[in-house]
Amino acid sequence: MIVDCHGHFTTVPTAHTEWRRTQLAAWESGLTPPPYPEIGDDEIAAALAPRQLAMMDERGIDVTLFSPQASAQGHHLGDAEVSLEWARRCNDLVHRATRLFPGRFVGVCQLPQSPGTSLENSVAELRRCVEELGFVGCNLNPDPSGGSWDSPALTDEYWYPLYQAMVDLDVPAMVHVSASANPAVHTTGAYYLNADTTVVMQLLAGDLFADLPALRLVVPHGGGAAPYHWGRFRGLAAMLDRPTPADGLLGNLFFDTCVYHQAGIDLLTRVVPASNLVFGSEMIGAVRVEDPETGHHFDDTRRYLDACALTAAELAQVFAGNARRVYPRMP
Amino acid sequence: MIVDCHGHFTTVPTAHTEWRRTQLAAWESGLTPPPYPEIGDDEIAAALAPRQLAMMDERGIDVTLFSPQASAQGHHLGDAEVSLEWARRCNDLVHRATRLFPGRFVGVCQLPQSPGTSLENSVAELRRCVEELGFVGCNLNPDPSGGSWDSPALTDEYWYPLYQAMVDLDVPAMVHVSASANPAVHTTGAYYLNADTTVVMQLLAGDLFADLPALRLVVPHGGGAAPYHWGRFRGLAAMLDRPTPADGLLGNLFFDTCVYHQAGIDLLTRVVPASNLVFGSEMIGAVRVEDPETGHHFDDTRRYLDACALTAAELAQVFAGNARRVYPRMP
Repeated sequence: MIVDCHGHFTTVPTAHTEWRRTQLAAWESGLTPPPYPEIGDDEIAAALAPRQLAMMDERGIDVTLFSPQASAQGHHLGDAEVSLEWARRCNDLVHRATRLFPGRFVGVCQLPQSPGTSLENSVAELRRCVEELGFVGCNLNPDPSGGSWDSPALTDEYWYPLYQAMVDLDVPAMVHVSASANPAVHTTGAYYLNADTTVVMQLLAGDLFADLPALRLVVPHGGGAAPYHWGRFRGLAAMLDRPTPADGLLGNLFFDTCVYHQAGIDLLTRVVPASNLVFGSEMIGAVRVEDPETGHHFDDTRRYLDACALTAAELAQVFAGNARRVYPRMP
Repeated sequence: MIVDCHGHFTTVPTAHTEWRRTQLAAWESGLTPPPYPEIGDDEIAAALAPRQLAMMDERGIDVTLFSPQASAQGHHLGDAEVSLEWARRCNDLVHRATRLFPGRFVGVCQLPQSPGTSLENSVAELRRCVEELGFVGCNLNPDPSGGSWDSPALTDEYWYPLYQAMVDLDVPAMVHVSASANPAVHTTGAYYLNADTTVVMQLLAGDLFADLPALRLVVPHGGGAAPYHWGRFRGLAAMLDRPTPADGLLGNLFFDTCVYHQAGIDLLTRVVPASNLVFGSEMIGAVRVEDPETGHHFDDTRRYLDACALTAAELAQVFAGNARRVYPRMP
């Protein structure tokens, strides 16, 4: 059994993406957006079967925890109302995918965050997705500005209403930014990884998990730079008079395995206990090509795990067991 | 022979730091700053001998390429004139350290960058430091705003006058940000690493080294997240139709070894060719404590290198040979 905890619906029907374009254009002009288009089940199936599903089959991935495309969530665009409408449309589309391919996709929702606004809409949309649509988690954007980092750190009470809802519903968040709004900071080559690192440091310096011991967060892309610099983080924890990362973070924090080469996965599995790793590939995502050195896709992360030093029992945890603990609402 | 390419003067005499405080206060009030204080040679020696030099001796480090404290460079504070005066004072102090302990410290200069201004002052200060003070390189801040990343990418022609001066003088730059001006982004636990990653991605996406084949840049902190995510960077290069990192970057780009645990150094030395690594510890810097798991300082990076899989010949390159190539003006 293999559960991929990190998949985004990146191959959506064109009509969905086109509507987003018109929604933002309407907002910029102060107009009402056109109605959301009719999209047939056949279009959704056609968007998934030959690509996402075919690749899951090819790689032996049974289930993907599926959320709207991260870079398209665009919380910095429009306003709170625009974000709410867009999040609902995206989540409804993911929901339809989960209904069309039951057992293969499980929903993880986009939150209608909007810079400088409260998390009220996000809490409501999380509840709708979990209670009405059967979703099992959410993507939480720690920097909805697209790069300014002007939201409070994730350890700040600003975020607590959302955390409380997550705890009540027993769902985790994957902490994942959307597209970079800054041309100097590449979205998938810098901003994503930087956000992961920034968030691990925020958590290390704060008291969040002592305050909310039932909260669970997943940091994607193998934790950004954190496992590679685990000694730095252990040392900074000591200098800040904080618990070690192992004591202070690993009861509540998980890393996915979206690291696209063998040496990286070997480091990750050496540094972070297997109990804190959830299998992820972010397929179909940032890196869609084959590695000429191996002849396999860079994001075929199962291969690196199969070849790493973990025992069979540990691998079973990483491939599925931990996902069941982190996402207990998964069917 | 061991050359530490990454040391900052973090234990400066109090009078130097205190003058900076008054300089900034004067600028904020529109006043003239007080004169820079007299600082005796004995004060400078006392700031170095029992700490930096003693630790170099303890670790077997012969020479440190020594620059002003990174987090105190503060290019985002004050204006261009404030930055120029501060950079000169800091560089002069480093110069005095190099004269007091000849053969142990070699100067690397701070540049008087200031957001939104030209690099004219930086070029002039680089020339002064190299031609008059015997410095062998510079620190280049890719984000002098302290976190906004509103400067052009390092591949932009904005930076070319400085690069041209570096090539003329045959000196490299270590690409190193100063303190984070954003409370959500921790300086040494996030901003430094994020900057390293961002810059590697900027270089990967651009044509800088094809344009200026004699330019040499050093990315500190083991390249941020880049070596850990080397597969991602190789894949993104392919997707962007760019040369591989090996072909496009490694003729001109070097990483230091400021990675504070064995697993991290093992990854770095496995992924990046030994010819592209320069020994660094950033001692006395971000992490000043001992690792309770080893009983040695986290930043005693020589130990991790001694224990890694490199051959003796490769280690000799990393400890000193590469530094001589990258910093050819080193005496």
